[in-house]
Formats: sequence, structure tokens, C-alpha cells
Amino acid sequence: MQIGIIGLGKMGFNLALNLNRNQYEVIAHDVNSSFVQNIAKEGIKTATTVEGLCQKLQNRKVIWLMVPAGEIVDQVITSLLPFLNKNDIIIDGGNSNYKDSKRRYIQLKELGFDFLDCGTSGGTSGALNGACTMIGGDAPVFEYVSNVFQAISVPNGWLYTGEAGSGHFTKMVHNGIEYGMMQSIAEGFEVFEHSEYDINFEKTAKLFNHGSVVRSWLMELTENAFSKDPKLDSIKGIMHSSGEGKWTLETALDLGVPTPVIALSIMMRYRSQMQDTFSGKVVAALRNEFGGHAVEKNE
Amino acid sequence: MQIGIIGLGKMGFNLALNLNRNQYEVIAHDVNSSFVQNIAKEGIKTATTVEGLCQKLQNRKVIWLMVPAGEIVDQVITSLLPFLNKNDIIIDGGNSNYKDSKRRYIQLKELGFDFLDCGTSGGTSGALNGACTMIGGDAPVFEYVSNVFQAISVPNGWLYTGEAGSGHFTKMVHNGIEYGMMQSIAEGFEVFEHSEYDINFEKTAKLFNHGSVVRSWLMELTENAFSKDPKLDSIKGIMHSSGEGKWTLETALDLGVPTPVIALSIMMRYRSQMQDTFSGKVVAALRNEFGGHAVEKNE
Repeated sequence: MQIGIIGLGKMGFNLALNLNRNQYEVIAHDVNSSFVQNIAKEGIKTATTVEGLCQKLQNRKVIWLMVPAGEIVDQVITSLLPFLNKNDIIIDGGNSNYKDSKRRYIQLKELGFDFLDCGTSGGTSGALNGACTMIGGDAPVFEYVSNVFQAISVPNGWLYTGEAGSGHFTKMVHNGIEYGMMQSIAEGFEVFEHSEYDINFEKTAKLFNHGSVVRSWLMELTENAFSKDPKLDSIKGIMHSSGEGKWTLETALDLGVPTPVIALSIMMRYRSQMQDTFSGKVVAALRNEFGGHAVEKNE
Repeated sequence: MQIGIIGLGKMGFNLALNLNRNQYEVIAHDVNSSFVQNIAKEGIKTATTVEGLCQKLQNRKVIWLMVPAGEIVDQVITSLLPFLNKNDIIIDGGNSNYKDSKRRYIQLKELGFDFLDCGTSGGTSGALNGACTMIGGDAPVFEYVSNVFQAISVPNGWLYTGEAGSGHFTKMVHNGIEYGMMQSIAEGFEVFEHSEYDINFEKTAKLFNHGSVVRSWLMELTENAFSKDPKLDSIKGIMHSSGEGKWTLETALDLGVPTPVIALSIMMRYRSQMQDTFSGKVVAALRNEFGGHAVEKNE
């Protein structure tokens, strides 16, 4: 089977190699021509335009998008439309919002095209060596390409999750869980770092990965990080995020469901991006107003 | 080597079997005589009193306590004192507060006895088949019994953490991390449960254990739980706790360190134990006072 891949960033590049190794004929494209040249060196067929990509794919075309979530997905889909035939399949393997995926499914369906939303977990190493994929959309469409998901995923690491949007929904919640787990691990090591004991972080993380209740891939990554930089002196504690945690919280709010740990995980990321807070100034000013408590002045 | 074990609950019972399988001569005791009879059936030597236990142990005695944290540990230690000789070793393998362990270390040291605090993770199956142990106390004392920890733990699953109290401290923070990870997993499935999609919890948890970022032993336990009861209809969402999470939070507060996820994990446990809250009544009353918003009346 042929598969077109659009988007050759860290995830898409590795996924193309993964598919190629699994005997799929990959045609790869990216707006960045250097990415296209780099993957050509890996022996992967390429196309310099979306039109060229579509021309190289036999019908029923299968086109995997691995581009940043948001408007870019819509732009790429719009650019593809003139070159698609009925029942060609677009798979969005990126981290799209599930509500966008539902909308795109309906829009494409009305035009006669098929759409699957595929949440992809496991990081860049997973994309290369075996990912975890969760796929939403019409069951017959999924069946048509199910071997693709099986091929690129670890054994038992792929699941048809149901109707359109459910793949990205499942991935979104996965990431919300991930935020809370990461923050919890991080808070534990914060306590270690400030404690009266001289805790060896790498040895402790390694210990936790051998027989403890908290053993996990994230704790293994924690161990790896400390093995390279025992006290993480080389980096700042600024935590960025790419949306899925926020969407999980927004969804929880829409559903009226309490998710305090996921909420606080996100808030701590935002706090980490601020040098100072206005709320801090307000509380300091109020303590000064009612109790004369000292405030720290800006120079 | 001989080892006395006091406390034959789920953890102590399994640990005795684990030690016995590893060629240690175990002498087991519990205040509950039925526990003593049960372990005798497993071919383990027993003692019906603390004095009898000590008489059966050669010098330098090694006595492992696996009793509930708190006053019981002190009571058992006090009951042992008349029968101990200089440099006999008491190991507290339970979930004691590290501050208590520091105190007990000092008290026993003054009397000429040695003390190690051992945090034990991995649940009852770990106690039986290979635990994760973290041990604080004097290094030479640890060295004297290090083979014991190696024998009962999984490979790489034991660590000398440093001075007295550090074993239980490390285990305490481990449990704090565990609280946050569990709550985060739980909140994700709460969102799934209320979502517009018909998510299969068992299949999703299983998927998450194959190649995803959140793969972990706790997610495997989540999968196991859903495999037995697909929607957990048979149980209530009341979450008890045994102290280590609270102590982690107390320690974080003493250190002036923010740990919001661990804090909220504990608060959600307390909330789960309440049918209704007084804070809820206060907020409902206030909304009624200022805006005439409806309140729900007690019958």
C-alpha cells in the first residue's frame, strides 16, 4: 500500500521511516524543502508539492497529515481537496483538538472524502520504533487502513476508539493524565530537593523503577534526565505546553466534572512561564494594607 | 542468617514467605495467634511471644517489624527492649513517619541498639515476589544486613538512602507521587466516563499500557480493575488513605514548597469520604443571600 505523508517534523519524519521499514511505499512532502531533501536521503520517495504528492499516489489515496494542530491542518486539507477523488482517506495523526476533528470529518464527508483522526503517543522514539495509536472515524474506513496502524504501533498499541473525534479525544485525555503524572513526579522531587537529606535523584528514580508502585515510563525518563544532569542545573524550570492539557480541562469544565490535579498541573505550567505574578503583588499589597506586613519593592 | 518478623498482616506474612524462600531462617510472631498458626502451616518457625521470638534468635539479632505505623511501633519496640543485646538490629519495614524513625533511631542508639528504617513499596505481591526497599540508618548496620534487602527486592530494587529516617522519608515522598499519579489517572477516566463517546475503559487502559507516554504499573492496575468490573459499578468512589500522602504535604508545607497536585490528591480523598460538605452549604447560602439563587433543601 502507498501512503502519502505531509509534515516531516520530528514525528512525521520518524513515522515515514517507520512505515517505510514496514514495506509501505511512502511519498513524503513538507513545505520546508530541506526536510524533503533530508528524508530523500533516507531512500523515501518525495514530492515537492501537494499536487505532486497526490499524482504519485494510486487510488484510493491514503494521506497522513503530521502537521501542527490548528489552522495549518485546515490549510493543508483545503490544498489537498482539488486533487482528491471520492473516498480518498485523510488521516490526521497530529494533536488536533477533537472538536476540530469532528468538524473536519463532517466537512470532508459532505465532499465525499473519508477522514480518520488518529491520536499518536509514545514520543519521537515511538513514532520511529512503535507508537501508540488511537483512531476515530467510520469503522469501514478504519478497517481499510487498519494494517497501517498495526504496522506502525507496538503490539496491542493501537485501538479503534469509535466515531469521529474519539481518537483525538482519547489522546487529549491521555495527555491530561500525562500532565498530572508529570507534575506529581516533579513535586515529589521538589520535596526531595529541599529536604534535610542528601537524596541522590538519579539513584532514587532508578530505585522507583524497580518494583515500586510508581514505576512508569515517565519515571524512566526522569531517571534518564538525572543521569545526564544530576541536579538539572543546566535547564530552567519553565514548562511549556501544546494544548491537550488545556483542552482536557476545558472539556472537564464543559462536562461539569472536577479534575483538580489536571487543572493545577496546567496552572503550574503557566506560573512557571511568569517571572513575577500580578496576583502576588495584589496579595502582598493587601497584607501590607491590613497588617502593615513588609512588601518587597521593585528596584 | 536468622530473621525475626513481628507483624504477620498482608505485608509481613508475604515478606516472611519471601525471606524463607531466600534461605533465611524466619521466626515469625504476631499478637494475633491465628496469623501465627497460618504462617506455621507454611513451614515457618513461629513464636507466641516477643520473648520467645528473641530467645530463638542467635546474636546479633535482626528483628523486622511490619506493624501499623504509629504507637504500635513504639509499643513493640518497648516490649523488645528487655530481650535485646548490644548492637541487635531492629528494622522498621512499615510505613512509619520519618520523624518517628529519626526519634526511634536516637532512642535505640542511646540504649546501644541499632535501627534501620526501611520503606517498602510494591504492594503485597511485591512483598511476596520482590519488593522495592529504601533503607536509612548507619551505613555499617546497613552493610551487615544488606544481603537481606537484596534478597527480598527485585534486582536494582533496593537502595541505601543515607542517614536515619531517609528510608521512610523516601518512601513517604514515593507515596505522595503515587497519590498524584493515581488521582490524575482517575480524573482522566472521569472525563472519559462523562464524555460524549462510548469509551471502553479496559481497552483504553490496555492501549495506554502499550507504547503510550502514560504506561505504568498503576495504569496496568487500572486495566486489571476494569477487566474485572468494566464500569466499577460494584464499588463506591470513597478513597481512604494511610498517612504518607498527608505527611508529604505536611513536609512540603514545612519546607515552604508548593506541591498543589499532591495537595489536591489528598483533598479529593477527604472530599470522597463526605456525603455532603459544610463548605458547600456555605457557598449555596451565600449565593442565595446575594443573588437569590435557589438552594437545595434538606428534607
